[in-house]
Amino acid sequence: MKLVTIEDVRAAADRIRPHVVRTPLLSARWGDPERPLWIKPESLQPIGAFKVRGAFNAVGAVKDRASDAVAYSSGNHAQAVAYAAAAFGLRAHIVMPKETPNIKIQATRDLGARVVLSEAGQREAVAAEVLAETAGAMIPPFDHPDVIAGQGTIGIEIAEDLPSVRTVLIPVSGGGLASGIGTAIRALCPQAKVFGVEPELAADTAAGLRAGHRVDWSIEDRNRTIADGLRSQPSELTFAHLQRVLDGVITVSEDEIRSAVRELAYRGRLVAEPSGAVALAGYRRGGTPPGETAVILSGGNIEPQMLRQILAEPVPG
Amino acid sequence: MKLVTIEDVRAAADRIRPHVVRTPLLSARWGDPERPLWIKPESLQPIGAFKVRGAFNAVGAVKDRASDAVAYSSGNHAQAVAYAAAAFGLRAHIVMPKETPNIKIQATRDLGARVVLSEAGQREAVAAEVLAETAGAMIPPFDHPDVIAGQGTIGIEIAEDLPSVRTVLIPVSGGGLASGIGTAIRALCPQAKVFGVEPELAADTAAGLRAGHRVDWSIEDRNRTIADGLRSQPSELTFAHLQRVLDGVITVSEDEIRSAVRELAYRGRLVAEPSGAVALAGYRRGGTPPGETAVILSGGNIEPQMLRQILAEPVPG
Repeated sequence: MKLVTIEDVRAAADRIRPHVVRTPLLSARWGDPERPLWIKPESLQPIGAFKVRGAFNAVGAVKDRASDAVAYSSGNHAQAVAYAAAAFGLRAHIVMPKETPNIKIQATRDLGARVVLSEAGQREAVAAEVLAETAGAMIPPFDHPDVIAGQGTIGIEIAEDLPSVRTVLIPVSGGGLASGIGTAIRALCPQAKVFGVEPELAADTAAGLRAGHRVDWSIEDRNRTIADGLRSQPSELTFAHLQRVLDGVITVSEDEIRSAVRELAYRGRLVAEPSGAVALAGYRRGGTPPGETAVILSGGNIEPQMLRQILAEPVPG
Repeated sequence: MKLVTIEDVRAAADRIRPHVVRTPLLSARWGDPERPLWIKPESLQPIGAFKVRGAFNAVGAVKDRASDAVAYSSGNHAQAVAYAAAAFGLRAHIVMPKETPNIKIQATRDLGARVVLSEAGQREAVAAEVLAETAGAMIPPFDHPDVIAGQGTIGIEIAEDLPSVRTVLIPVSGGGLASGIGTAIRALCPQAKVFGVEPELAADTAAGLRAGHRVDWSIEDRNRTIADGLRSQPSELTFAHLQRVLDGVITVSEDEIRSAVRELAYRGRLVAEPSGAVALAGYRRGGTPPGETAVILSGGNIEPQMLRQILAEPVPG
């Protein structure tokens, strides 16, 4: 299997540069003195999540031979593809399950996309139909080299801003983000350790890496976590990357995730969605090596009611 | 009176570059289509406010001839001077009123500063005593050309990132921030209009600019606003700058300020203190010219309880 290379990630950085925010790497002075903490706030991207990086790279790669971009997602990937397609002048068709909250459907339409509703479990089939109708290009959420390379541009920026980084902590779901960043960090900061972070309630990648092959958790099990962006599982392509680039996977509890959302708001002045806060939760869990530590805050799309609820919870200890 | 020049601001930018965050200018797609909205999140600076820029420039200017830095402040300036002094190896002495919340005293001490408590109204006298004892340098919160030039570096960054900017909205209190940014924008983006924004309950600068001279509001009046960082009044030096660089001052209500804090959290994924949100409130008030509009989010130091309270309030309309 051909894996993404640092050259692929560099090419992605050149391609997406005009379209994404060069997020600062923020020194969080309140971290553990033995492991100085840095936060990469991808919540500040347009649409509020890192997904624009992969979307711009993948849509940019097909824009000269396709007039339509097709994706299936109920989350941040939907808006990322809609946003990138509009920027490149492509029509976007986003397949979403019928039960998707209306606010997300509307946000995707507001970006100019056509939303196609599907029955639960039928998303991929419906997307294939739309693809056949439009002769467009499919932009998958993580299972594609261009998407992985786009997400990897975060790793290049970390290496530029903090060449002495010793540890990088990355949320893992489908694995595109960790595959891309891990590829870049391995190449540019060979001294650094790279850890994925997963909710305990959706820890299929931790189990899979221990077993040496992908492990399937039921969607009912994975749906238990509040981190709704982390309920996917790696593909063969991303799993092969994760096997190569990760030094381990840290799992965190639901309470630790909620606590990390509070820490980011009260100390970091940043609004994170639960999925976006798991890397900080992994840092707080401890056990990572001494030295400069970068955590990826992957997204900030949290419902107002959930944000209010989490912020109102008492801080333990 | 000698005013700060764009060359002073450029020199400040060179001096502070290693020490401050180059904050991104974030496109807020949900703004008014006629006045595309951009947010400059100075809340992401170390200590959570723009004040580090002026502090680093002013402390950096004296670091070779003073061993101590003295300041009086109960707010963000206290931590900014403590932080900059520590970075340059100077001892910081911060005079704070006795009634300062303990959390702010402790935060200043945590940055390595000596905190000297004073009776209310005695801050400047006590600071003068400390200055005489230490043979240090006084770093005022706004009434100094080096502080104004440091804050002005924000204007250079806006001009770099958005040369076509048509309107810039800046919170006004002592006026150092608006003086500095206004100086830079006038020089680099002559097509742009520059507006200060004040709470209606502390609108002494709006009144002063109308009158053509400084107007004194009682501290009791000014203390009514929730925007506790905007209760100071311009000095002669900053007022002279504001007369030259501002096209006007917009005043906003307390409800509009609270609404802007919510908008920044829910739509911008950024935690703002009330003082930090007034420029967005001024934008929402309307009446500014069409075209690209940059608002300064000046700081994010809000007590958890106040943040929870404001986020829980119903959104009007």
